[in-house]
Amino acid sequence: MSAAQVWSVDPRTGKRREQVAVEATAEDVDSAVRAAHSARGSLADRAVRAAFLRTAADRLDAAKERLIETADAETALGSPRLPGELARTCYQLRAFADIVDEGAFLDVIINHPDDTATPPVPDLRRYKVPLGVVAVYSASNFPFAFSVAGGDTASALAAGCPVVVKAHPDHPATSELAAECLRRAAVEHGIPEAVVGLVHGFEAGVELVKHPLITAAGFTGSVRGGRALFDAAAARPVPIPFHGELGSLNPVVVTESAAAERAEQIGTGLAGAMTLGHGQFCVKPGLVLAPTGEAGDQLVKSLADAVATTGEGVLLDHRMRDNFVAGVAERAALPDVDAPVAPGAGDEHTVSAGFLTVPAARLAAEGEHDVLLEECFGPVTVVARYEDDAEVKAVLSRLPGNLSATVHLSSDEAEGKGDGAAILAELTPLAGRVLVNGWPTGVAVAPAQHHGGPYPATTSTSTSVGGTAIERWLRPVTYQSTPEALLPPELRDDNPLGLPRRVDGRPEH
Amino acid sequence: MSAAQVWSVDPRTGKRREQVAVEATAEDVDSAVRAAHSARGSLADRAVRAAFLRTAADRLDAAKERLIETADAETALGSPRLPGELARTCYQLRAFADIVDEGAFLDVIINHPDDTATPPVPDLRRYKVPLGVVAVYSASNFPFAFSVAGGDTASALAAGCPVVVKAHPDHPATSELAAECLRRAAVEHGIPEAVVGLVHGFEAGVELVKHPLITAAGFTGSVRGGRALFDAAAARPVPIPFHGELGSLNPVVVTESAAAERAEQIGTGLAGAMTLGHGQFCVKPGLVLAPTGEAGDQLVKSLADAVATTGEGVLLDHRMRDNFVAGVAERAALPDVDAPVAPGAGDEHTVSAGFLTVPAARLAAEGEHDVLLEECFGPVTVVARYEDDAEVKAVLSRLPGNLSATVHLSSDEAEGKGDGAAILAELTPLAGRVLVNGWPTGVAVAPAQHHGGPYPATTSTSTSVGGTAIERWLRPVTYQSTPEALLPPELRDDNPLGLPRRVDGRPEH
Repeated sequence: MSAAQVWSVDPRTGKRREQVAVEATAEDVDSAVRAAHSARGSLADRAVRAAFLRTAADRLDAAKERLIETADAETALGSPRLPGELARTCYQLRAFADIVDEGAFLDVIINHPDDTATPPVPDLRRYKVPLGVVAVYSASNFPFAFSVAGGDTASALAAGCPVVVKAHPDHPATSELAAECLRRAAVEHGIPEAVVGLVHGFEAGVELVKHPLITAAGFTGSVRGGRALFDAAAARPVPIPFHGELGSLNPVVVTESAAAERAEQIGTGLAGAMTLGHGQFCVKPGLVLAPTGEAGDQLVKSLADAVATTGEGVLLDHRMRDNFVAGVAERAALPDVDAPVAPGAGDEHTVSAGFLTVPAARLAAEGEHDVLLEECFGPVTVVARYEDDAEVKAVLSRLPGNLSATVHLSSDEAEGKGDGAAILAELTPLAGRVLVNGWPTGVAVAPAQHHGGPYPATTSTSTSVGGTAIERWLRPVTYQSTPEALLPPELRDDNPLGLPRRVDGRPEH
Repeated sequence: MSAAQVWSVDPRTGKRREQVAVEATAEDVDSAVRAAHSARGSLADRAVRAAFLRTAADRLDAAKERLIETADAETALGSPRLPGELARTCYQLRAFADIVDEGAFLDVIINHPDDTATPPVPDLRRYKVPLGVVAVYSASNFPFAFSVAGGDTASALAAGCPVVVKAHPDHPATSELAAECLRRAAVEHGIPEAVVGLVHGFEAGVELVKHPLITAAGFTGSVRGGRALFDAAAARPVPIPFHGELGSLNPVVVTESAAAERAEQIGTGLAGAMTLGHGQFCVKPGLVLAPTGEAGDQLVKSLADAVATTGEGVLLDHRMRDNFVAGVAERAALPDVDAPVAPGAGDEHTVSAGFLTVPAARLAAEGEHDVLLEECFGPVTVVARYEDDAEVKAVLSRLPGNLSATVHLSSDEAEGKGDGAAILAELTPLAGRVLVNGWPTGVAVAPAQHHGGPYPATTSTSTSVGGTAIERWLRPVTYQSTPEALLPPELRDDNPLGLPRRVDGRPEH
C-alpha cells in the first residue's frame, strides 16, 4: 500500500495546489524521534543554541517572500497579517536566544551546608535540565507563529530540547519551508538537522505522542483534538506533560457606565476584534456581556454598522467554513436569539461575519442556550444583554476556563470609583489574562505575558507565549555533596558562566 | 447502612487501639471540599497566612508529646525518628512562612509598554495566584512530614490554597491530632478551620480527586495507588495537575577505585542507609552496582556484617510486612541470586533486614530478573556485581525514573581525575537528585532541594520537598492595560509590598 499523499490546498478555491509530502508511517515517526533524540547533545551548549535560534530567525527573514506567498496560498490570511506574523515569529526566536544567553531560566539555586537547619542541609545545587525530545502540534490559524518555527519550537529549542513537529494539514508546504529554514540554521552551527523533525498526517500525530522517547508535548488547536492527545499522553506507560491550548470563549464585560460613556467606540472596537483575521483567533472575543437599555442598544447598533461593512472572507479550510456555517445556524435558531447582522455562508468558498444577541438570562442557567457558551471558530460573537449585575455574575459563573477575560469600564471606574476592582476579581479566576478597556486579540511576546488559562484554555498552568514558555520543557535536578571539579559549570561557586542565581537565600545577578 | 469504622492499629501487635473516625461518604467529601472552597478567601492575605503557618508549627510543637506517642503507637517508628520527623515538619511550616513573607514565589514580572517590540507590547503585569482547594494524600511512612501537616499541606497553604487531606489508614489518630493543631492555629488567625479538611477511607480518596472544586492534588505513596489517582485526575471533565511521588529504586554506583579505596566504609554506610527506618524510605538505596573482585567482595562482606547485627523490626502495617516477605522471597528464588544475609520474616509481627546479590549481567537485558529493578519496600537492597563499565551502563539504561541516583568515587575521581563527570552525566537523566559519596536517605528541606524525578519517581516535574514545592499550587495571571487604581498591590509600580520582581527585564529586590 502506498503512503497517503499530503496536498497543499488553496482555501480560496478548494483546489489542490501541489503534493507536498506523504503521511508519515509509524516507522517514519520512530525514525524522526530517534534521530532527534540522538541529536540532543548538540543543543547542550547554550551559546551554540542561542546562535542557532538567531540564525533561524535570519533564515526565515531571508526566505520571507517565499514563505509569505506560500502561506497565503494555503491559508488565505493575506497581508498585513502574514508579514506581521512572520516578523513576530522571528522576533520570538531572537527573544528566546536572549533568554538562553541570560540563563535565568536555569533557575540556579545553591545552598551551602547548614547545620542549623532541621534536618541539617548538605551542599545542594539545583538547576534545570532539558526534558528531551518535544512533540509540537502546529496550529491551523498561525502558519508561522504557532507552527513549525513558532513559540513551542522556539521555547523547546531554547530549553535544549529537539522537536518533532506534526505539521498542520492546512499549510503543509509552508511547514516544509519553515522546517528547511530551521534545519539550515542548525547545520550552520554544527547541529544535526534532525533537531527539527517534521511529520505529516493524523495518525502520525497520534504515534508521536505515544513514542517512548517523546518527553513532553505542545499543542495548539481544538478541544476535541487536544483532549484526545492529552488523554493519550496521560495514558502512556510513562505519562508526559502535555501543554495544550484548546479553546476559549474570551468573555467581555461592558459595564453600564462604560456603555453610557462610549457605546460607539466599544461597538466599533468589538467589530474590529471579532472580525480580525476572519475571527480565526483563539483570543477572539466570543461572548460580550452588554447592558440592556439605550446605551447598550447604541453599542449593538455601532457593532452592527461596523460588522455589516466587513467583506466576505475565506476561512483556513472548507471544513472550518462548513463548521462555521452550521455552528452559527444552530445558534441563531435558538429561542430569543437575534442576528442583527447574520453570520453565515458567503459564496461557495467564503463566509460573512455577523453576530447574535440573546438576553443574558438565557445563559444564567443550564439549558439549550449553553451552546452559546462554546467557542465558535470564525467571525461571529454573541452579545448577551444583561439587566443587572446579578445576571452578569450568573453568566460568568457558568463559563469554562478562558485564555482571556476583558472588562470595559468608564473613566471613573478605571480610576477606582465604582466596582472595577470587584469585577477584575471576578474575572481573574476565569482566565490567564485579564484586560481593561482593550481587546484580547493581539498577544504580545514579552516576559510578563501569559497565554494560557484554566481548562480548556490550557491543559496545564503554563503559557505558550512569552519568556516563561521555556519552563515547560525543563525539569530540576539537584546535585548533593558534589565536588567542585565534577559540578556542571552552571553550579560552581565561582560562577564561571556569570549566571543569575540564588545562593543561600540571596539573589545574585 | 452504617459508615465503615476507621481504627487505629498497633503494628507491633496487629491489634486495634481505638476507633478514630468513620470513613467519609461521598457527601462528607463534598462537604469538606465545599467548606474549604468557601474558606479560600481567608488565605488571601500573605501576612495572615505566614502567621498561620508559624502558629501551626507552634501548635504542633506544643502537642509534641501526644503526637509522638500516638504516632509511635500507630507506626512503630520510635525514637529518635519520630521526634526528628516532627521537628522537621515544624521547621518546614516555618520555612514556608518565610517564603510567603518574602514573596519571590509570586514571580512578579512587569513589562511597561514597548512600541519597539514585534508586535508592540502593551502594559503587562504578571504574578501567580492560588489554584484553589488542593487534595493531599498522606504517606504511610511519614506520619508527620508527608501527612496532614506535611510538605504538601504546608506548601499549599503557603500558596494560599485550602487543603482537604486524605488520611493514611496507618495513622488515623495521628492524622486527627495534627489536623486539630492546624485548625486551632487557623482559628487563632481568624481563618475558618475548614481550610484544613480531613477525610478517611479509600473511597473517599477516589471521590476527592474527582471533586469538581478540587484544583490539584499532591500524593506520596505506591506506584499502583498513585497511578490510579493520577489516571482519575487526568480523566476528569476538567483535568487537574496531579503531583504524585510514586516509587524509586535509587541506584548507587560504586566505582572500582572507590571500592578499592574504602570498601568497608561504603559497605557499612550502605547497611545504615538501607536499614534506616527499617528500609521504609522512598529514597532507600534499592540497587547497588558494585564491582566484582576482591574490593567488591570486601564491600559485600562489610555490608553483611553490619546488616547481620540489625535487629528485627516492625513495619508500618502487617500488609507491608506480608508484601515484604513475599517480595524478598520471590527475588531470592531467582537463578544466580544469593542472599548473604537473608531478608524475610522475623516473628509474626516483625521482619529481618537482609540483602541480595546478583551478577549485573542478569539485569542488563529484559528477563525474569527484572523484578530486581522494582522497588521492594522494607529493609532489603540488591547488590549487582559488575565486571566492567559496559555492564554498569547496560543496567543503568534499563532503569525507570528515580528520586535519587548516587555514585561513590575514589578521592582521585572526586578531584576530577577519571570518569567521575561522565558517570554523573549518565546518572543525571535518571533522577531528580544526584549524590556523590553520600547516601540518599535524608532529604533536607532547603530552597535548592529537589525531591522528584522522572516517572515513576514523580508524575510531574515538580518537587515535594523544599521551597519550590510551592510552585505546584499556583498559576500565572497577566493583567493587561490595567489602571494603577485597579491593580492588585503586588503589581503596582510603586511596589507597596516591597516584593522582589522583574521590571522591563531587570530584577529588583
